[in-house]
Amino acid sequence: MSLLVVGSVAFDAIETPFGKTDKIIGGAGTYIAYASSFFVQPVNLVSVVGGDFPKETIAEMNRRGINTEGLQIKENEKSFFWSGKYHMDLNTRDTLVTELNVLENFDPIIPDSYQGSDFLMLGNLAPAVQHTVLKRMKQRPKFVALDTMNFWMDIAWNDLMEVLKEVDLLVLNDEEARQLSKEHSLVKAYKKISAMGPKYVIIKKGEHGALLFHQDQVFSAPALPLEEVFDPTGAGDTFAAGLMGYLASTNDISFDNLKRAVYFGSAMASFCVEKFGTERLRELTQTDIQERIAQFLELSTVKIPS
Amino acid sequence: MSLLVVGSVAFDAIETPFGKTDKIIGGAGTYIAYASSFFVQPVNLVSVVGGDFPKETIAEMNRRGINTEGLQIKENEKSFFWSGKYHMDLNTRDTLVTELNVLENFDPIIPDSYQGSDFLMLGNLAPAVQHTVLKRMKQRPKFVALDTMNFWMDIAWNDLMEVLKEVDLLVLNDEEARQLSKEHSLVKAYKKISAMGPKYVIIKKGEHGALLFHQDQVFSAPALPLEEVFDPTGAGDTFAAGLMGYLASTNDISFDNLKRAVYFGSAMASFCVEKFGTERLRELTQTDIQERIAQFLELSTVKIPS
Repeated sequence: MSLLVVGSVAFDAIETPFGKTDKIIGGAGTYIAYASSFFVQPVNLVSVVGGDFPKETIAEMNRRGINTEGLQIKENEKSFFWSGKYHMDLNTRDTLVTELNVLENFDPIIPDSYQGSDFLMLGNLAPAVQHTVLKRMKQRPKFVALDTMNFWMDIAWNDLMEVLKEVDLLVLNDEEARQLSKEHSLVKAYKKISAMGPKYVIIKKGEHGALLFHQDQVFSAPALPLEEVFDPTGAGDTFAAGLMGYLASTNDISFDNLKRAVYFGSAMASFCVEKFGTERLRELTQTDIQERIAQFLELSTVKIPS
Repeated sequence: MSLLVVGSVAFDAIETPFGKTDKIIGGAGTYIAYASSFFVQPVNLVSVVGGDFPKETIAEMNRRGINTEGLQIKENEKSFFWSGKYHMDLNTRDTLVTELNVLENFDPIIPDSYQGSDFLMLGNLAPAVQHTVLKRMKQRPKFVALDTMNFWMDIAWNDLMEVLKEVDLLVLNDEEARQLSKEHSLVKAYKKISAMGPKYVIIKKGEHGALLFHQDQVFSAPALPLEEVFDPTGAGDTFAAGLMGYLASTNDISFDNLKRAVYFGSAMASFCVEKFGTERLRELTQTDIQERIAQFLELSTVKIPS
């Protein structure tokens, strides 16, 4: 099955308690494309970069089974740039610089060859742009997932409500779920959010794992207890990528398979935080992923005779 | 196998966003005795109350298989009294009143009939008192667990270090683990705490479940996602009770059985918070517990073909 991914492809400059980077390759679309390509190929990427974006990175994406026909290159403009500094506990960060550049007027174009994609991951972007992507699909994909953030709730609430009506799965973190629902209890938050449209809701809780909700069912997945998180940038995107990549590769959207997909998402995210940026994802092997999944199962499996 | 429990038997007055109580029966020893009696009988209780403590409650304890031979009654003194008010999110609370009364000079006496108890739960009390109980056991129990709190780290650090050397399992929450270890990462916290003595460490994370550590193994158990927590008082004691009750009833201290025990602790704690004080625990049936365990398994079980 094919996966269409939309999200930023950009430059990041990151500072954590463990060090700092110059401009490195980042962006939700990049993390999602790299991580999901371990599960399904081609990954059909829709995004936009400036003339400053390295052609070598695009070539690397292609070698990894990422179709970049939908990656627009605006030769006379600059790529999106974000710079942030994480606090000591790595749970919070300050944004130092946000230069929208090519993202400011991003009009997502869906190449004909992408039409018919069965799975669609709407990575974190302006809700109106996410909605445009969905509307431009001639046939609605079998399963549509959306990621968002507090920022869009603050400045584009109505657009967000419009696109939420159309998606199957919303992936967001606990803080975002509370802001979106105005409820503290995550169970109550899920109920309010599902009334906005999404039939499935995944609430990510960072080091505490994730909750998957659907109808009156709930599933709790652990996070891997880590001694150190090196760089959390992209972990949420990578979680969504592992999840959607696994769903697309198995072509099964049952609740039981979504549970498995949450584990694959968690496993991929646990790699992402081990090094700066996309570095760890780019060196991964299928064996690494299988071993990490085994580690997650070991972490959470209990047998109780009834 | 037999379980010896030491902890306060007391009066509480509780205020939550959902209501408030007059003086009701509370205390760590009470919660632990009530909850563990579903798994093992007799539960040998060591504690102290004043003449104001209702004889009817002691009679109820006896009917429930709790041996109160080690419950001292100081007829001319008053029972320990604690009053607290929870904040809106129920994660934090203010202590309004603490009257130590009979606890001020509590000298725990171990009746001869309690000697030979195989499992010992040292409920939250002054570390020196916990240590005295252990020293007064003629034969060291097979498995000793200890609960503590920030308060003792603040005022009785050295006593706490002394008793920690002697216990098998320390049960504490994430905030307490960070204070005890001076580490933010719970994996690092475990390593420092295990160097203080306990071979097993359980870090409770409230609505995020619990982590069980032993050597280089770690197990993550979920909490039941609840719409509302009615009254968190005693949830930590009840967790320890379900855990130790299950261990004592199965007489198996393997890591695999400790994993199961964490589930039973979590299940018992999930009942405790549904009503004020010990009310929910006192109306429970074995069927309720079995059904709750099934619910926990449903919540966390995933099957991934390798």
